[in-house]
Amino acid sequence: MPCPDHPSLATIDILTVLRALADPMRLAVVRQLHEQGEATCAELLRNRPKSSMSHHFHVLRDSGILHTRVEGLHHYNSLRRQELDQYFPGLMTSILLTTKES
Amino acid sequence: MPCPDHPSLATIDILTVLRALADPMRLAVVRQLHEQGEATCAELLRNRPKSSMSHHFHVLRDSGILHTRVEGLHHYNSLRRQELDQYFPGLMTSILLTTKES
Repeated sequence: MPCPDHPSLATIDILTVLRALADPMRLAVVRQLHEQGEATCAELLRNRPKSSMSHHFHVLRDSGILHTRVEGLHHYNSLRRQELDQYFPGLMTSILLTTKES
Repeated sequence: MPCPDHPSLATIDILTVLRALADPMRLAVVRQLHEQGEATCAELLRNRPKSSMSHHFHVLRDSGILHTRVEGLHHYNSLRRQELDQYFPGLMTSILLTTKES
């Protein structure tokens, strides 16, 4: 199974990142990965519909937020936190640590 | 001319704020207000279509980002920066000060 492509954060603008985060499902995935560190797609699916989650994974990956590594039959997902913090300082911290839940 | 309603930031969640900011026109307005401090609707319009800008002003106001005060025939707009910083610490700073323009 090939590894998915990951864009360079240097090619991603703040609007793309904001658009990706401005969705309840995707924000929930980002929060789960922040807490869990790394998670398989199955772990992130929970009771969410697989087809729409596949779209959300694509959006998060294409916007430079999500990294997916393939090991055997499993996809392991994590946040590209270090790079995000480098290119958008403070953004993920402010969103993840907000006391105002959505 | 009555003053528009402004929601309490206590009732606004991070998702609403992200959705409001995840638009090129609205992000441009927010950036202009950050630089200018206060601006009339006419100053913010520039060559943008009035009808769509009216919608964008509504979205920014309803999401707690924009404050509008009415003085005579003019509407003066500004960011609710202090309240935003209180409820979403670091969010506006990270978005406004990012070196990666959209």
